Amino acid sequence: MARIVMKFGGTSMAGVERIRAVAERVKREVDAGNQVAVVVSAMAGETDRLVAFCREVSPLYDPREYDVVVASGEQVTSGLLAISLQAIGVPARSWMGWQLPIRTSDGHGSARIAEIDTATLNAALEQGQVAVIPGFQGVAAGERVTTLGRGGSDTSAVAVAAAMKADRCDIYTDVDGVYTTDPRIVPRARKLQKITFEEMLELASVGAKVLQTRSVGLAMKENVRLQVLSSFDDRPGTMIVGDDEIEEAMERQFITGIAHDKNEAKITLTDVPDRPGAVAAIFAPLAEASINVDMIVQNIAHSTGSTDVTFTVPSAELARSLDVLEKAKDAIGYTRLVHDTNVSKITIVGVGMRSHAGVAAKMFKTLGDRGINIQAITTSEIKVSVLIEEDYTELAVRVLHTAYGLDAEQVAA
Amino acid sequence: MARIVMKFGGTSMAGVERIRAVAERVKREVDAGNQVAVVVSAMAGETDRLVAFCREVSPLYDPREYDVVVASGEQVTSGLLAISLQAIGVPARSWMGWQLPIRTSDGHGSARIAEIDTATLNAALEQGQVAVIPGFQGVAAGERVTTLGRGGSDTSAVAVAAAMKADRCDIYTDVDGVYTTDPRIVPRARKLQKITFEEMLELASVGAKVLQTRSVGLAMKENVRLQVLSSFDDRPGTMIVGDDEIEEAMERQFITGIAHDKNEAKITLTDVPDRPGAVAAIFAPLAEASINVDMIVQNIAHSTGSTDVTFTVPSAELARSLDVLEKAKDAIGYTRLVHDTNVSKITIVGVGMRSHAGVAAKMFKTLGDRGINIQAITTSEIKVSVLIEEDYTELAVRVLHTAYGLDAEQVAA
Repeated sequence: MARIVMKFGGTSMAGVERIRAVAERVKREVDAGNQVAVVVSAMAGETDRLVAFCREVSPLYDPREYDVVVASGEQVTSGLLAISLQAIGVPARSWMGWQLPIRTSDGHGSARIAEIDTATLNAALEQGQVAVIPGFQGVAAGERVTTLGRGGSDTSAVAVAAAMKADRCDIYTDVDGVYTTDPRIVPRARKLQKITFEEMLELASVGAKVLQTRSVGLAMKENVRLQVLSSFDDRPGTMIVGDDEIEEAMERQFITGIAHDKNEAKITLTDVPDRPGAVAAIFAPLAEASINVDMIVQNIAHSTGSTDVTFTVPSAELARSLDVLEKAKDAIGYTRLVHDTNVSKITIVGVGMRSHAGVAAKMFKTLGDRGINIQAITTSEIKVSVLIEEDYTELAVRVLHTAYGLDAEQVAA
Repeated sequence: MARIVMKFGGTSMAGVERIRAVAERVKREVDAGNQVAVVVSAMAGETDRLVAFCREVSPLYDPREYDVVVASGEQVTSGLLAISLQAIGVPARSWMGWQLPIRTSDGHGSARIAEIDTATLNAALEQGQVAVIPGFQGVAAGERVTTLGRGGSDTSAVAVAAAMKADRCDIYTDVDGVYTTDPRIVPRARKLQKITFEEMLELASVGAKVLQTRSVGLAMKENVRLQVLSSFDDRPGTMIVGDDEIEEAMERQFITGIAHDKNEAKITLTDVPDRPGAVAAIFAPLAEASINVDMIVQNIAHSTGSTDVTFTVPSAELARSLDVLEKAKDAIGYTRLVHDTNVSKITIVGVGMRSHAGVAAKMFKTLGDRGINIQAITTSEIKVSVLIEEDYTELAVRVLHTAYGLDAEQVAA
């Protein structure tokens, strides 16, 4: 017997037929003798509909009332799945965030889970009842409904799994696992059997959107074994596990996956004075405006005693960033403000690169051989990211996938 | 300053534009210096959609989970109205049934309100905050969500009004008041300025569906002044008040209104033994099957020592009723079981008939003069109902409306 959390996303809950299929899948885990909690999203499209209502009523909506409105989507699917489970003979009941309760911060619209009371939950599980829990929602002090922010149901699932000390948290979604890269770009991308939390975090943060980044971080912190798998077929998915679970075996790849992100914009400030505090004058006002700066490149000083500073921001924040930087022109003291949205970030990720030299050099040479110019570089212990011209995105991903030996022998199904 | 409950139905809440209009109307009462609680229904069609989901998942749904699902419709409109009020500068917040709380019985799907905690509600009102309360929902012992049954939002509004000792409970709907009869049948039907609770109860129970019957009964018991008025224009509506508020003035009509109901079916059992216990043998099994029997006519015994018994049941219950009676044939001892759905019940209602003789006689003569045959009669202190052939329904209503002097001088707008 194991304790399992199963989480189903919006496409898996879209309509009565699919909810019935979810119930059947839950039943299989119950029939296998497991204690099961299920965390559900709203029906696909429903949260968008509810958010649109709020925005239409008032763009400056009260986030406390927004939470009341949007939390209803998961309430509906929880009740329907409980009914569906009962209909096939599986004891089940729904538990709203305020009933369990799932205590959160009062950061309405993007609350953080603080504590989940497991007394009632465990009692229900011990009795063989499946607990159906709406994802995305909780309750703050003062008993007001909160939501965790878009995609928050993954985080709910991991938090429930941690609280009930689950043996596994299975995230059912519309893809069947984590791939070495986007199969739409590289048909020979391979599904990974295992990937570490850290690798998953790096991949998620650079655009491989299988799991919400927060949920992976929480799973790593709480050491919850995560699995990503498809609601629509029965093949095993990808396990996301601690570093210790991946053996240093022969077949271990240096590189686990390759991600790309076209949603960055490059900004260059020319002739910034090369003196202490100059860089702080650039990035402090951006940080104050809550703009996430990613790659930063500062060249050595010109003979004139000034330097050029290049960095990237999310494309969606470009206009705000330029506005902030123009207002700070005198304080920074740059000559020109140049920007470019025609860029793409290519990232190779792998815990294996820790123990192997030459991984980055291979990346630069592979791209150089194809005439792809590198505009900026950042590295961490387990990843290397380069900024290139956007038009070369797919070519870069393909040649790197081959260069690192990631191509499958057959095209993915 | 007054304390007012305003209740808005599904058509008034159908979409963002209408919710904004509701907010404006609430603002007017607030600007006039009143303390206001608003009770809202789900958007028109939403509850039907949610009920259909439950039925589709399983016709034998768990009513506790059904309540979780269907209560979400009012949760959405409550949040949206609170946002809409704030957007026009009116302090407001939503209070779910479990937050206030509105305590109910655990009769899921058709719970009864037991108690409303007014401490938090009154504190909010005293601070000048509008309380937006989802109708139709509450919370039972064990903190599970309950609903009051279809149309329950009227009852929620009256219960809130009673709990907060409101000066008035205004029910905004898609009609602008209570009419002497259905204006689609009699264009000269008049809107009533006032009507008593008892008259309203009689009219509601015979098919004039302006207010849910339960809400009127509760208002009468708690002495809540009810008003029915239109969300879509500014004219005063109809006040529903205690008997004492209607003066015995000259213009007081004997008859206040005329209702019709085509949803009854007539059943006749022939040759029932004329002995003690015979009638009980008929109605006990029907009562056990929760079938509401309405009009009952028992003729005097034939010379054979047996009698015919005629009564009506809701058409929707006819099949079940016949089944029950066939199974009880030996116990009852009738010869034939005859039924007829081609009947209609016409009811005249008025507290004035208490003090005036001849009101019923006038009804029988008026119908007789037009050749309309009366198949059964029941009376109460303030109403007379007759069963006639369905095809004569509209004719009967029209001739009675004229006979009792109810016709307006002009056709209703």
